[in-house]
Amino acid sequence: MSSVRPLIVIAGVGNGLGTGGATARLFAQVGYRVALIARGADKLKNVADELSATGAEVVAFPVEAYGYQDMTNAFAAIKAHQWPSAGATELRVALYNAGVSVRKPFLENTEKDLRTVTDTNFNGAFAFSRQAIQEFLKNELDDKGKRGTLLFTGATGSLRGNITTSAFSAGKFAMRSLSQSLNKEFGPQNIHVAHAVIDGAILTDFHLKRFGESLRDNVDGRLDPASIATGYLYLVNQDRSAWTWELDLRPAHEKW
Amino acid sequence: MSSVRPLIVIAGVGNGLGTGGATARLFAQVGYRVALIARGADKLKNVADELSATGAEVVAFPVEAYGYQDMTNAFAAIKAHQWPSAGATELRVALYNAGVSVRKPFLENTEKDLRTVTDTNFNGAFAFSRQAIQEFLKNELDDKGKRGTLLFTGATGSLRGNITTSAFSAGKFAMRSLSQSLNKEFGPQNIHVAHAVIDGAILTDFHLKRFGESLRDNVDGRLDPASIATGYLYLVNQDRSAWTWELDLRPAHEKW
Amino acid sequence: MSSVRPLIVIAGVGNGLGTGGATARLFAQVGYRVALIARGADKLKNVADELSATGAEVVAFPVEAYGYQDMTNAFAAIKAHQWPSAGATELRVALYNAGVSVRKPFLENTEKDLRTVTDTNFNGAFAFSRQAIQEFLKNELDDKGKRGTLLFTGATGSLRGNITTSAFSAGKFAMRSLSQSLNKEFGPQNIHVAHAVIDGAILTDFHLKRFGESLRDNVDGRLDPASIATGYLYLVNQDRSAWTWELDLRPAHEKW
Amino acid sequence: MSSVRPLIVIAGVGNGLGTGGATARLFAQVGYRVALIARGADKLKNVADELSATGAEVVAFPVEAYGYQDMTNAFAAIKAHQWPSAGATELRVALYNAGVSVRKPFLENTEKDLRTVTDTNFNGAFAFSRQAIQEFLKNELDDKGKRGTLLFTGATGSLRGNITTSAFSAGKFAMRSLSQSLNKEFGPQNIHVAHAVIDGAILTDFHLKRFGESLRDNVDGRLDPASIATGYLYLVNQDRSAWTWELDLRPAHEKW
Repeated sequence: MSSVRPLIVIAGVGNGLGTGGATARLFAQVGYRVALIARGADKLKNVADELSATGAEVVAFPVEAYGYQDMTNAFAAIKAHQWPSAGATELRVALYNAGVSVRKPFLENTEKDLRTVTDTNFNGAFAFSRQAIQEFLKNELDDKGKRGTLLFTGATGSLRGNITTSAFSAGKFAMRSLSQSLNKEFGPQNIHVAHAVIDGAILTDFHLKRFGESLRDNVDGRLDPASIATGYLYLVNQDRSAWTWELDLRPAHEKW
Repeated sequence: MSSVRPLIVIAGVGNGLGTGGATARLFAQVGYRVALIARGADKLKNVADELSATGAEVVAFPVEAYGYQDMTNAFAAIKAHQWPSAGATELRVALYNAGVSVRKPFLENTEKDLRTVTDTNFNGAFAFSRQAIQEFLKNELDDKGKRGTLLFTGATGSLRGNITTSAFSAGKFAMRSLSQSLNKEFGPQNIHVAHAVIDGAILTDFHLKRFGESLRDNVDGRLDPASIATGYLYLVNQDRSAWTWELDLRPAHEKW
Repeated sequence: MSSVRPLIVIAGVGNGLGTGGATARLFAQVGYRVALIARGADKLKNVADELSATGAEVVAFPVEAYGYQDMTNAFAAIKAHQWPSAGATELRVALYNAGVSVRKPFLENTEKDLRTVTDTNFNGAFAFSRQAIQEFLKNELDDKGKRGTLLFTGATGSLRGNITTSAFSAGKFAMRSLSQSLNKEFGPQNIHVAHAVIDGAILTDFHLKRFGESLRDNVDGRLDPASIATGYLYLVNQDRSAWTWELDLRPAHEKW
Repeated sequence: MSSVRPLIVIAGVGNGLGTGGATARLFAQVGYRVALIARGADKLKNVADELSATGAEVVAFPVEAYGYQDMTNAFAAIKAHQWPSAGATELRVALYNAGVSVRKPFLENTEKDLRTVTDTNFNGAFAFSRQAIQEFLKNELDDKGKRGTLLFTGATGSLRGNITTSAFSAGKFAMRSLSQSLNKEFGPQNIHVAHAVIDGAILTDFHLKRFGESLRDNVDGRLDPASIATGYLYLVNQDRSAWTWELDLRPAHEKW
């Protein structure tokens, strides 16, 4: 085996109990170094510490927001990071899992709400993608015939605008479009770009608060973050002959 | 007849030879007052003068860019405008026809390119919509059962991301999402929001330069702005029992 | 003016109070000869008689079902028909408005149900299209630059499968696909093929029974067949520079 | 461990070198009994023999065509089959991989062509689904929380009609609709229905003939059936909290 270690960068981790955290845990288990980008330095440190305690190699890069410059800076820090264990590092997977939860009647959206959405779903997503793709282009093909995989976490709102989601959905549509453009532009260079449509409530503190504790036991009615992570690992392991651009994921009993 | 005169506001007019100009001409012919918002004060003045010369009531509101504040200011000016002829004015139609033509490989997009796209397709579109809808909400139902019609000009890139359109398409996707959210949110208040997908080259200076003069005589292969305007008038005249959200328009011989 | 009279053929007329009947009335008013194809000879005769009483030139061709041979035979009869008034006839518009109302749980669908769906939405639609296109190909371009317009009436189920619509939607999806293929294949020969997605309850006896008499006065909540017909006339009158493939139509207050 | 053995039924196997054969091999390797339904008894026997030689438990059920009665009969035979080894059998996975290759200008489609399409993509698909779902409903939940998984193999033509695909696409659209309706109707009963969009040339004799031998070494430009099968196994193994309805699969360098 070569001494090169694969790295996954994940932007958007929250308190570690959602999709970002589950993906970090799963990829750490299968041998990836993990770099986490998130807002809330304390919360992020807790997530990183918990992961490290399981033997994972993980570093945390807190940001103020998910804007263009924040993402650019975070990547610079990630590239400069000295991993304590032996072996060079190659960025192989990047997951843009950052999101906003602006849901309100259209006329209540403030200019600041819009800025949050464009920073997170547009500027931040573009800067994150730029950094990831530039790194991927330096890689050799791996044993699946890839230079790297760039993943985006989407939502129902990525496919349909609706009342109370005028701002949220516009951002999600933009990010979905970005993922499709990048898939088409960089597929010929063996960079795999994919978009997951998470359609339903995820078993997280956020959704437990919103939908109530009964969500926890509703195994047919909510998404387990670990199952989403399994989907991401499947996408990353797809060989170059059969790549998925878009994967929808929803609970068995979801009405859609 | 009442002394109230309907007003159409159009953002995005260019040199007047495209969709915005054709829509202004057609709606002026059927009795609308016309307010034009566009960049390039001189060019805009020419368009307004040409329209006025045909007897149309038209005023021009130049802007620096299609950002949030620009759109808000333009609407304030439009509302404050004193129309010389008799009769109160009611905003009944608003067309957001502003666009950007950023098409380049993903890695060549600058942060400024992104800002142009988000300003035009996101912030400007939201502010324009906000102003239009707030005005529409003051209107009584017209004889079609509407308070107003808000139109957006989309493109092929509104439906598909592609190589060289990562920024352009992301903006267009966002605007399409906005139009769908608004259609669903404000339909119950009898405000009609529609989105046109213009799929093909339009007979404008811009496309004549891009595709050559032969485009002019290729009556099966390019869109006539007047025909797009006819489509917009049809949408505006749809009664409340049968509204269209999305209208695709392409030349007879377009490959798609 | 030439002595040539345009003809519209409409398949699917029911009792004349829905989309087919309204389209017949509107096109008769603007100068078309009308050929009606429908099941139920008596009902069809009533519709034709009512139209004739308004001065329309109309003939009725009853069929047993909407299968391949039925459509082929009906067109043969239409072509052989001697119109009493002066002037040659040219088929210029064909509307396939036939539909089935099979909505039931999947496991309750019988083989006969499937046959009804495939006959109506597949075999009948293909045969009807074949006959119409073969006639259109004989035409010169009209003043809109067209040889003819072929219209299909779709539904919400054309875009989304759902519980109780496994058979219905499969048929509607097939017909939508047919309309798209034909649009792409025959656009280069200036034949315009379009598909309308009727999304909501139409003011017909069928829906009055299903949703109750209150539907009648719910002017914001149901489609008026005359408004759908207006949409069809707009599509037919689109010039060759800007054709629509798909037009969605729904009431102002429809939740979607 | 219980003595119950899972069974996969696959309709559409060809000469065993495509998706159906690869799926049979992969599922046999992970412990499934395999029932194959296909046209061409001799070819089918060869595929079954080859699989058996690797230790797989496999039986073959040749059919004349993929019609309603053929599928019904094949399932009756499968249920009646006595597996030589110990252990009861439970149908857990069913893959409808049958397809037609009718691609021709619209006007060249014969009534027989249409019958082949409706038999394969409509009647056969409905009957196959009916049989599979009725069996699944008898199952207990497995350790993933499922009663069974029903898979459909789609194509680019499932999403877009095009010139030369009027018949082919209509059938594929219908099947895609069926898969969506069934996903929504039977998800609440923990039956997972999914649809794969295979977008590109598959490394099969059929495509080798069509695109030439160079396809074989074009590892970035064609789909490996084994990779498609891996995708199917991933779908089958998805737990009930995160199910995919639609999975697109295309080669890294595919233009789309």
